Amino acid sequence: MVNGLPGDMGVNIVSAAVRRGIQVIPWSLTGPGIEQETITVDGNEIALIKPEDHTAKITDIIKEYTPFISIDFTHPTAVNSNALFYIEHKLPFVMGTTGGDREKLQKDVETSGLYSVIAPNMAKQIVALQAMLEFGAENFPGLYQGYELSVVETHQKTKADTSGTAKALVSIFNDLGVNPFTNDDIQKIRKEDEQLKMGVPENFLSGHAYHTYHLTSNDKTVHFEFQHNVGGRSIYAEGTIDAALFLNKKIEENSDKKLFTMIDVLKAGAMQ
Amino acid sequence: MVNGLPGDMGVNIVSAAVRRGIQVIPWSLTGPGIEQETITVDGNEIALIKPEDHTAKITDIIKEYTPFISIDFTHPTAVNSNALFYIEHKLPFVMGTTGGDREKLQKDVETSGLYSVIAPNMAKQIVALQAMLEFGAENFPGLYQGYELSVVETHQKTKADTSGTAKALVSIFNDLGVNPFTNDDIQKIRKEDEQLKMGVPENFLSGHAYHTYHLTSNDKTVHFEFQHNVGGRSIYAEGTIDAALFLNKKIEENSDKKLFTMIDVLKAGAMQ
Repeated sequence: MVNGLPGDMGVNIVSAAVRRGIQVIPWSLTGPGIEQETITVDGNEIALIKPEDHTAKITDIIKEYTPFISIDFTHPTAVNSNALFYIEHKLPFVMGTTGGDREKLQKDVETSGLYSVIAPNMAKQIVALQAMLEFGAENFPGLYQGYELSVVETHQKTKADTSGTAKALVSIFNDLGVNPFTNDDIQKIRKEDEQLKMGVPENFLSGHAYHTYHLTSNDKTVHFEFQHNVGGRSIYAEGTIDAALFLNKKIEENSDKKLFTMIDVLKAGAMQ
Repeated sequence: MVNGLPGDMGVNIVSAAVRRGIQVIPWSLTGPGIEQETITVDGNEIALIKPEDHTAKITDIIKEYTPFISIDFTHPTAVNSNALFYIEHKLPFVMGTTGGDREKLQKDVETSGLYSVIAPNMAKQIVALQAMLEFGAENFPGLYQGYELSVVETHQKTKADTSGTAKALVSIFNDLGVNPFTNDDIQKIRKEDEQLKMGVPENFLSGHAYHTYHLTSNDKTVHFEFQHNVGGRSIYAEGTIDAALFLNKKIEENSDKKLFTMIDVLKAGAMQ
């Protein structure tokens, strides 16, 4: 069950699920202010359930479709209340939304004993890149001592703040010993003409995340560069489906561990 | 004591040592066919000892300079005999040369109980990049499933074979699940006009190692890129000095472990 439709992320997840032969329940919990009653994604009509009908309708859905995994990319402000809803109705879920009170979220879910994957970033390969660099920072202190870092990130012009992923990686590069570098030193590109010059495809101007981290040695003879360039939302949708398949497997195995992150999903390997 | 002078690598190591305030013994064991009797590096005159004089001269050097670390970047064919020489004279050493019978080398040194660092690649940051990606391959199987790899490496035109580092990384990327990729798929650039276009500085055309690994997702919306671009030999010289300082510390600590790799050096952190 993909909640948060008609949001873009939900649409991408339905597409990815259909592409991978996974049944999508034709109902979606939606947020306040959505007038639309249904949405059709790749030929699948899905009915949108308004907030006041959530509790009544979920009982029917549980009767008809159990077992199923709920996928949640709803509004950041709904993070905690949605989690409580899943807990109340014993619905295992995958939640990719950031925001909310993360500590409370963690505690609520842990106490409940419900199966879930909660992750601020569903892009497996980017989460793994962070984990690989963190491994370096933990094991090879001072690796990039004397190296000068530069970071450029480009996102759709509607994104006002600096990329959270860029900030996370800057923190790791600092741990790796680069010359002092703050989040203010991250170059944010939001102008479309500059983005086109940097190789962002025109169809992704409205939704992309391109990152380049460049390291230059003290004497300028050595350069390292790391890039992760994402157009659109397919990588997040695919990662979410992987997380749902992973969670389903854990439920079937009756796993003792119940609350998972994308690192757990990554460790389990590629899903079919 | 930097052996293998007047070779380029030796010269770079003497420079790096002097730059970092480390005393260099003014003698160097050299190989057959070198007529030159001395070499001056950054104002330090170093006498070259011909093969037939090695045994006689080393006794005087040991008397005058012990304790010291020997650094060996001599000819690949001299790997095993040089190691036996260091073992015979109880001279702890750092050996960066590849080639020789590696298994015998390992066994001889282990049996001897001599302190040493032996590594095919002294570039700490590149060894660490390999280690980080290996960590990924071990922990996140199938991470790059469905991704297409492309690899371009450029080296000085005199290098006939494919880069060993590129091959090592290709093997790791295969472990990470990319679409089948063989060493024959590595693009070797050896033409100087192409190298200049790719950003190799003119002064490094005669000695450089530029590598780009590019990964493209199945649906072409996601790209990852890793680059390590090295001009000249300073990175190897610096790594070698780090290895020597590390080994010196291990000797002072009377470490039980005596045979080390660059991973051990990396784990010890940045050296001053």
